[in-house]
Amino acid sequence: MSDTADTRTGAVMAAIRRKMTSRALLPGDKLPSIRRFAETMGVSPSTVVEAYDRLAADGVIRARPGSGFYVSGSLPPLAVAQVGPRLDRAIDPFWVSRQSLEAGPDMLKPGCGWLPADWMPQAAIRRALRRLPHADDSTLTDYASPQGSPALRALLARQCAQDGLPVGPDQVLLTGSGTQALDLIGRFLLRPGDVALVDDPCYFNFQALLRAHQIRIVSVPMTSDGPDPVLFAQALADHRPRVYLTNSALHNPTGATLSPQTAHRVLTLAAAHDVVIVEDDIFRDYEPTPSPRLTVLDGLERVIRVGSFSKTLSASFRCGSIVARRDWIEALTDLQIATNFGGPSPLATDLIATALSDGGHRKHLDGLIRRLSRARRAALDRLDSLGVQPWLAPRGGFYLWCRLPDGRDAAALARAALRDSVIFAPGNVFSVAQTAGGFMRFNAAHMTDPRVYEVLARLLRAPPETLTPAD
Amino acid sequence: MSDTADTRTGAVMAAIRRKMTSRALLPGDKLPSIRRFAETMGVSPSTVVEAYDRLAADGVIRARPGSGFYVSGSLPPLAVAQVGPRLDRAIDPFWVSRQSLEAGPDMLKPGCGWLPADWMPQAAIRRALRRLPHADDSTLTDYASPQGSPALRALLARQCAQDGLPVGPDQVLLTGSGTQALDLIGRFLLRPGDVALVDDPCYFNFQALLRAHQIRIVSVPMTSDGPDPVLFAQALADHRPRVYLTNSALHNPTGATLSPQTAHRVLTLAAAHDVVIVEDDIFRDYEPTPSPRLTVLDGLERVIRVGSFSKTLSASFRCGSIVARRDWIEALTDLQIATNFGGPSPLATDLIATALSDGGHRKHLDGLIRRLSRARRAALDRLDSLGVQPWLAPRGGFYLWCRLPDGRDAAALARAALRDSVIFAPGNVFSVAQTAGGFMRFNAAHMTDPRVYEVLARLLRAPPETLTPAD
Repeated sequence: MSDTADTRTGAVMAAIRRKMTSRALLPGDKLPSIRRFAETMGVSPSTVVEAYDRLAADGVIRARPGSGFYVSGSLPPLAVAQVGPRLDRAIDPFWVSRQSLEAGPDMLKPGCGWLPADWMPQAAIRRALRRLPHADDSTLTDYASPQGSPALRALLARQCAQDGLPVGPDQVLLTGSGTQALDLIGRFLLRPGDVALVDDPCYFNFQALLRAHQIRIVSVPMTSDGPDPVLFAQALADHRPRVYLTNSALHNPTGATLSPQTAHRVLTLAAAHDVVIVEDDIFRDYEPTPSPRLTVLDGLERVIRVGSFSKTLSASFRCGSIVARRDWIEALTDLQIATNFGGPSPLATDLIATALSDGGHRKHLDGLIRRLSRARRAALDRLDSLGVQPWLAPRGGFYLWCRLPDGRDAAALARAALRDSVIFAPGNVFSVAQTAGGFMRFNAAHMTDPRVYEVLARLLRAPPETLTPAD
Repeated sequence: MSDTADTRTGAVMAAIRRKMTSRALLPGDKLPSIRRFAETMGVSPSTVVEAYDRLAADGVIRARPGSGFYVSGSLPPLAVAQVGPRLDRAIDPFWVSRQSLEAGPDMLKPGCGWLPADWMPQAAIRRALRRLPHADDSTLTDYASPQGSPALRALLARQCAQDGLPVGPDQVLLTGSGTQALDLIGRFLLRPGDVALVDDPCYFNFQALLRAHQIRIVSVPMTSDGPDPVLFAQALADHRPRVYLTNSALHNPTGATLSPQTAHRVLTLAAAHDVVIVEDDIFRDYEPTPSPRLTVLDGLERVIRVGSFSKTLSASFRCGSIVARRDWIEALTDLQIATNFGGPSPLATDLIATALSDGGHRKHLDGLIRRLSRARRAALDRLDSLGVQPWLAPRGGFYLWCRLPDGRDAAALARAALRDSVIFAPGNVFSVAQTAGGFMRFNAAHMTDPRVYEVLARLLRAPPETLTPAD
């Protein structure tokens, strides 16, 4: 049912829908009373009645006689209830994803996790696209082979060999995305109630994903060299996790790099406790020099590598990868057929293979690395003048993990910034143990607009009690 | 580790790997003894020793001292163990998928579930591809918005309206495929141990998918008008399923069409027992005239529609859809972000929207329907001469659900046909209750090569005991 008929009624309906999208209202929540919302919206109560009635007719809300209106849906106990905590909308790991993905072009996204479109290798992609109309019929309309494009798998196998890990293309599975790779692995390895270990802080979607699997999550504090080895040993002994999930190359969000000593200790401990390690290699192209890889030290006995092309080539193409021992790849391939009838589009893998072989690709990456280096330096300078300090200065990548001055609360600041059309990523969305309330992750590639610093400066100066939640 | 060094050793290794791919060997299975496999392969035992040692070094197999070699991997109790039964490789629902998806161009696939590439709208797709290099930067590299392309969602909303179901684009979620849509819904609605109801027979991947969710599956026999209403009522009362999963338009594999009376009874019973219905609309474009839709009668109170572009436009593009009540769409959208960071590629949805608006599309569909009609008639004639009879003559679509003569066993025949490079789909892969041992599903679009009938004829004449499993 469309919202066209009456503009005021439509505006009220749209406001309620926005509250649901921003998760200010979740299924089962009570809507504002008719009188109160009429005041808030500056319309007559009858307009709100009309709007609520139409939302009820759509099934979006339900009237409970004598009680008011409630958002529809008894949330099943699965997935969604665990995708993110309901405690506080701004620290919901989900909130940052949804806001960033839905943001219109007028919104600034220093909290998002990807590069602006114009930083990506657009020219190489357009060149690759021009070849597509000449692809054979099968590439245009057939399902992919179960493990995916042999050419792209061979490329990834060569990449592993260059890292010091000789694998065959049959140990590579192409997936619909890096996230989907993690999801498949989760379904393969984990049962509800199992324990997973992550870093504190860690990429927020690890949390949302593990919650969707009803996994109990414990965390180990990061140091500048990787997870704290002593606390890592303790976490393994105390909680007996089935899996440890981490980044290689450049840690998200801290930018830290695993040291050889920590890598070796982590692997030794994992072997002693029969823990599987999943190493998300998504930022490999951004490190200036190679750093230790758990997959390489381990030789794929108990470590699985996940990769993606979303951060260096295109997030639109939807292609990720898993490198693992052959028998696990076989099982994961079956699981991907059962749940998605295959992996990435043959068109997409064709495009990726072509773009990666493009003569300009290496040059583009080198230019990107330099550009990011300048962007990080410029952002750190501006942030420093506001009293915002990095936890460490990263060797590469987009993220700056910074502490706000004067014990300011990042979540409150992020909520307030929404009203200024700026989306920040407050620290606690990255922290299962909620230890990062005073931190923020900034994406240096989205810190070039002066408005980011204007809004940040103003909110850092505002008395904390004035930072009320956005409506 | 590559298989290049010694050709004979490589051949032995490849043969073992093929057994694993075809699931003749699963994790934990014992490999043939060295002596026996040397005889089978016509090589010296030392060659087999070398091959087994190298496979062990790859981690693919493990030696158990005093016992022999075993395929590596303790299969976790999840997913894979339930993706398909181990009883008999040919009735494993998975076997048909894997064989068909991996089949080289020399293999004939009368058992597969899609059209040959040259039947698909190649010209319109190439025209749409030519426009892509001119798309904006964002389409080429950005993540999709959470629900996906507004234009494509509006198109699907209009399609629903034409069916008699007025919905807004906000009630549509674009997914990575029709299968992934079903998978998301499964994760949203179902917990391990829940019961799901399907038709007998039903699309085999429904089984594989439900097993991956550890769902108990019960079935209701199909009639030519839809599920048997009396048995449907009984199944609901006896088993209390959470969900009923079925096709609309043209049933897979029988080709049957839901009658208005059965539709109404099914919906009434579902409401009385609080069962959610998932209606897979994937063959909508193939019906000559519209037939009842449970979503339309229900108005999205408890029915969810799943769609896909894989059968009429392209299986390469990877795009499916869910139409449902708004609060469920919201939750499914969140779940898709957590598990895949979004739905289909913006490039893919752009292509689809363009190709669907192509002036030639309606004409192509009409031509396709006529071509399929001729193909079904021709196939039925040839099959009739072999004593193979259809259960019913379908109004449209590709499938012919047929009984073999003389009580022949379809699974044995399908296994033997592999040796002749023909992939058939034996009836019991479609039947949870295993009632279809004498049936086969033929895809009329893959029945034009005379070799299909030669192989079928020969195997139907061969004494049953001679149909030994392919090695």
